[in-house]
Amino acid sequence: MDKYAEILAMAKRRGFLYPSFEIYGGVAGFYDYGPMGAALKRKIEDQWRKFYVLGEGFGEIMCPAVTPEEVFIASGHVKEFTDFVVECKKCQTAFRADHLIEETGLKIHQHNKETMDKMIAEAKIKCPQCGGEFAEAHPVNLMFNTKIGVGKNKNAYLRPETAQGMFLNFSSLYRHFRERLPFGAVQLGRGYRNEISPRQGLIRQREFWMAEAEIFFDPENKKHPRFAQMKDVKATLVPNTTREPVEMTLGDALSKGIVKNEALAYYIALTSKLFTTIGIDPARLRFRQHEHDEMAHYANDCWDAEAFLDKLGWVEITGIADRSAYDLSSHMKASGVDLSAMRKYDAPRTVERIAVKPKMKELGQKFKKDAGDVKKALESVDACAIGPEGIELEINGNKIFVEKELYEAAKVQETVYGERFIPHVIEPSYGIDRIFYTVMDHAFSRTKNEEGEEYTTLRLAPVVAPIKVGIFPLMCKDGLDKIAEEIEAKLRTAGIECQYDDSGSIGRRYARMDEIGTPWCITVDFDTLKDNTVTVRDRDTKEQKRVKIEALAPMFREKLGL
Amino acid sequence: MDKYAEILAMAKRRGFLYPSFEIYGGVAGFYDYGPMGAALKRKIEDQWRKFYVLGEGFGEIMCPAVTPEEVFIASGHVKEFTDFVVECKKCQTAFRADHLIEETGLKIHQHNKETMDKMIAEAKIKCPQCGGEFAEAHPVNLMFNTKIGVGKNKNAYLRPETAQGMFLNFSSLYRHFRERLPFGAVQLGRGYRNEISPRQGLIRQREFWMAEAEIFFDPENKKHPRFAQMKDVKATLVPNTTREPVEMTLGDALSKGIVKNEALAYYIALTSKLFTTIGIDPARLRFRQHEHDEMAHYANDCWDAEAFLDKLGWVEITGIADRSAYDLSSHMKASGVDLSAMRKYDAPRTVERIAVKPKMKELGQKFKKDAGDVKKALESVDACAIGPEGIELEINGNKIFVEKELYEAAKVQETVYGERFIPHVIEPSYGIDRIFYTVMDHAFSRTKNEEGEEYTTLRLAPVVAPIKVGIFPLMCKDGLDKIAEEIEAKLRTAGIECQYDDSGSIGRRYARMDEIGTPWCITVDFDTLKDNTVTVRDRDTKEQKRVKIEALAPMFREKLGL
Repeated sequence: MDKYAEILAMAKRRGFLYPSFEIYGGVAGFYDYGPMGAALKRKIEDQWRKFYVLGEGFGEIMCPAVTPEEVFIASGHVKEFTDFVVECKKCQTAFRADHLIEETGLKIHQHNKETMDKMIAEAKIKCPQCGGEFAEAHPVNLMFNTKIGVGKNKNAYLRPETAQGMFLNFSSLYRHFRERLPFGAVQLGRGYRNEISPRQGLIRQREFWMAEAEIFFDPENKKHPRFAQMKDVKATLVPNTTREPVEMTLGDALSKGIVKNEALAYYIALTSKLFTTIGIDPARLRFRQHEHDEMAHYANDCWDAEAFLDKLGWVEITGIADRSAYDLSSHMKASGVDLSAMRKYDAPRTVERIAVKPKMKELGQKFKKDAGDVKKALESVDACAIGPEGIELEINGNKIFVEKELYEAAKVQETVYGERFIPHVIEPSYGIDRIFYTVMDHAFSRTKNEEGEEYTTLRLAPVVAPIKVGIFPLMCKDGLDKIAEEIEAKLRTAGIECQYDDSGSIGRRYARMDEIGTPWCITVDFDTLKDNTVTVRDRDTKEQKRVKIEALAPMFREKLGL
Repeated sequence: MDKYAEILAMAKRRGFLYPSFEIYGGVAGFYDYGPMGAALKRKIEDQWRKFYVLGEGFGEIMCPAVTPEEVFIASGHVKEFTDFVVECKKCQTAFRADHLIEETGLKIHQHNKETMDKMIAEAKIKCPQCGGEFAEAHPVNLMFNTKIGVGKNKNAYLRPETAQGMFLNFSSLYRHFRERLPFGAVQLGRGYRNEISPRQGLIRQREFWMAEAEIFFDPENKKHPRFAQMKDVKATLVPNTTREPVEMTLGDALSKGIVKNEALAYYIALTSKLFTTIGIDPARLRFRQHEHDEMAHYANDCWDAEAFLDKLGWVEITGIADRSAYDLSSHMKASGVDLSAMRKYDAPRTVERIAVKPKMKELGQKFKKDAGDVKKALESVDACAIGPEGIELEINGNKIFVEKELYEAAKVQETVYGERFIPHVIEPSYGIDRIFYTVMDHAFSRTKNEEGEEYTTLRLAPVVAPIKVGIFPLMCKDGLDKIAEEIEAKLRTAGIECQYDDSGSIGRRYARMDEIGTPWCITVDFDTLKDNTVTVRDRDTKEQKRVKIEALAPMFREKLGL
C-alpha cells in the first residue's frame, strides 16, 4: 500500500473522510468530512480567517451558490469553463478527450476540437468500456445547471468559484470601506465543477471548498501598506524565465523584478506564513510563476503555490493572480452599472474642456423623436470626437452624423476633484480540500514501534489538531475516572477540545491519539490522588512530565496561543 | 417606515445584508451577507458550536449539497417536499395555490388538490398579473434539480436539509463513537428550497443556512446524561393541550408529562440557554408544541422555538423533534445496508432457537440452480415461519413452499451477547438566517438623541458583535492617530475585532459604532500623551472611564470570555 492509499484508509477509519453516499454505492468526486476531518478543516479555515479577516482587516461576505446565468455570461464561464468530451457511439459513455489521449502516452499541445479529433483518429482510440467508435469532440460546460422557480423559470448555475460575489458587490463594499483603496473582501465556501470523470480523490472534487480574497487596488499604486513586515519572508520561487527553484526573500524577488508588484509579493509571503502556521512543510512548498501561455489573457502575473505530495507530485493548492481590471470591467459592461472607483486629487484641479450645447429646435426638425437621445449624446461627447464638419455619434448601435450647424461648441473651465477608474484585482485563491490533504500528507508518519509493529503518527501543528488533549484514567477505579472526567469538563470550559478515553492499555490509547494527531495526552494515576498532579505526554518528543491539575488549562491555552 | 423596513434599510446601509445579484436586477429569495452580517452570523454559529461540538462533544461533519436522487426517494422528499401550484393559462405565471387563496381572506383546512381547485373556482380567483384563468393545481417539488456528469448522467438535487448526511453516515459515526449511545452528529451548512414565490425577505429564502444535530438514542432509554444541569432552566412553553403559554422549568415540564422525554426536555433547555447567550430576548421567545395533525406521522413529539418579531409576529426559528426510527429505517430499507445498533446485555444470555438444516440432495433435485438461495433462506428463517407441513419462503420476490421432508428442524441453544435495534433520533434543527434576523430585531433600538434626531443602537450581546471595539484618535495630530493605530494592532493580535475611525466628530463616530452594535469605543486624547490612558465608553450605559493602554486587551478578553 502506498502512502496515498495509507492516508485515505486511515482517514476513513479515524473519521477524517468518508466517501459520500456510500450506502447507495457512492458517487465519484464527492467526499464527506467526518468528525475529525471537519474539525481539522475548520481549524485550517480559522487560521486563514485570522490572517485575512482579523489580520488584514478585510470584509468577509457570504453569497449564494445558486447564481443566475447572466453573471456567468458576463464572467466568461458560460463560454469558457469547458472540457472537450467525446461520447462513445455505441454505449454513450462520455470521456474527457484529453484524458483518453494522454493515457496512450501522447502529449497534447493544443486544446482544441480539431487537434483532439485528429489525435483520437490517428491513435485509433476506442471506447474503454465497449470498444466502440467515438463521435467528434465537443466542449461541455462544467457548471452544474439548475432552474430558479417554476413555470417561467430562470436558468442558473452553481458557482464554480466564490469570487463573483465580491465583484457583484463591489460598489457596496467600496462604500463600506469608505471609498479608500486598497481594500479586500473575502469569501470562504463551496464551489462546484461537474467533472466529466473525476479522479485523484480529494484533489479533484465536484463539490469543493475554497477561500478567496479579492483585493482592489488603484492600478497606479499596487503597493501594500505593510510590505515592510513581509519583505524578509523567504520562499522557494520558480520564475517562468529560468524555471529553476530558488529560495529568496520576497523583498529580493520584488527588487529583481521576478515578482511584478508589491501587492503580489506581499500575498506570496502571507501565503507562505499561513502555510507554515498550519503545518505545511516549507521544504515541500514552492511558488511557481505561470508560463506566459498559461496565464489568462487579462492577467498581469500569476503564481501558484504548489505542494509536493506523495504519489501525486507537485500539486497546485493556491493561485495568486493579478487579474487586472478584467472582472469589474466585464460586469460593468454586461450590467450597465458603474463599478468604478474615484482617485481624488490632492487639490481640486481646474480643467478646460469643450462643452457642446445642442440647438434643440434644429435637432428636433432633423431627428424628430430621437432628438432627446441625440441631445444627451452630444452633451457627454468626448472632445476628440468633434470634427471640423460635425460630430459622428453612435446611438443604440446606429451611427449618425450631426452637422456643426446643429450645436455650439465652446471651451469651458471646470473644477475637477478626481478621476474615475476601474480598480485592479489581486486574487489569492485557496483550495481548502487540497490544503487539507497537504496538511495530512506532510504530517503523516509511519514507522515501526518498539514491538516492530507499524505505527502511525499524524504530526499536526497543535493549532490545527482536532483534539488537543487526550485524557486517560490509568484504571477505572478509586475515582481515577471521575478525576479524569472532571479534567475533561474543565478543559472544555476553557475552550480546549479534548477526549476522554478509558478503554484498553495506556499504550493503545496513546496510539489512537497519535494516529489522529493529538499533541498531548494526560494520564490520571494513583499519584494523582496524593499530589493532584497528572502526567502530560508529548506526541512528538514522547516526553512525560508531571503537572498540577490546576495548571493544565492555562498551560495548554498558552501553548495554543488562545 | 416600520421597524422591519428600518432594520432592512440599516442592514443594507451598514454592510449586514445585500440583496444578491442586484446589479443584474436581483433574484427573489437570495441574500448576501455583507462584512458585518457575515461576522455576526459566524459569531452566532461559533456559539452554536460551543454548545453542540465543544459542550456536548458531538461530531461535526460536512457533506455535499449536491445529492443523488436515491437519497431523497428514500427520505420521502421526492414525493412529499412539494407545494401546490397553479399556473395562469394565459401568461403562464405560476403561483402557490395556498397563497392565492389566503390572500382573499379564506382559510384552507385541507392542503390537497381537490380543496385548492374548488376554493379557487368558488372564489373566482384570477391571475393577479393578467386576469387570466388558472389551470388545475398540481404539486411541484421544491428541490433544485441538477445532473451529475454528462452523457449517461445521474439525476440529483440540492439538499433541502443537512440531516440526511448524518443518517447516511450512521454506521461510520456509530463506530467513531465506539458503538455507544447516545451520541450526536451535527452539520452546519446550506439548505435549498426552490420557493414558488418567495416573500418575507430573510425569513423564507431559496438558499439558506441551517445547523442541525441528529442525536441517536436507544428507544428504550431517552434519558440525557446531563439533564440534572438543565432541569432548573426556565422557558415559556405552549403545550398542544391548553395552547396557553406558561413559564416553567424543564424539570417540571418533564415530570408533568408535558414534554415527552428527558432528551427533548434537555434540548429545549439547551436551546433556551444558547438563545439567551446570543442575545435573543427571553420575553420574546417561546416553545410551542406541534398540534397532533401538524406533526409528521412518525414523530413522537415536536416543539418549535418561536421568536416574536416586529411586523411578522411569532416565527419558527428552530424545531426540536423526536423523529423515532423513521430516518434510519427508511434508508436501511432503500439501501439494503444495515443501520442498526447493538444493545449489549449486562451478561451473555443463553437462548433456545429452532435451527433448520436443509437436506442438500433433496433440495438440489427439486430447486435445481435455485437450491443455493433456498438453502440460505432456510438457514436464516424465523422460528414462527415453520409450519406443520413445511416452510413458505419468499426468494427474489417469488413465493415458494419447502416441504418438511426437505430439511431437519431441531432446537439448539445459543449464547447471545445483545440485540440489534434501530436507534431513535432527536433532532434540534436551527434556522440560522432566522436566528440572525431575530438577533437583529431584538437588539434594534431607535430613539431620539439629545438633539432630537433619530438615533439607532444595535444592542448586540458583546459575544456576537462583529466589531468589539471602535478606536478613535480625538484628532489626527501630535501622534494621537499613531497611538490609536498601535492600540488597534495590539487588540487585533489579542484576537479582538476592532475598527479604527478618524473621520468626523467623536459623536458621529460613536453613532456609527452604535448602529453596528459595537459594545465599546476607545478615544485617544491629549491626556493619553501624559498618562498613557484612554477613555473607554460603553454602548449601553454611555459611561466613560479611563483605562491604561496596557490594561485594554486583558480587560476586553475578560469581558468577552476569551
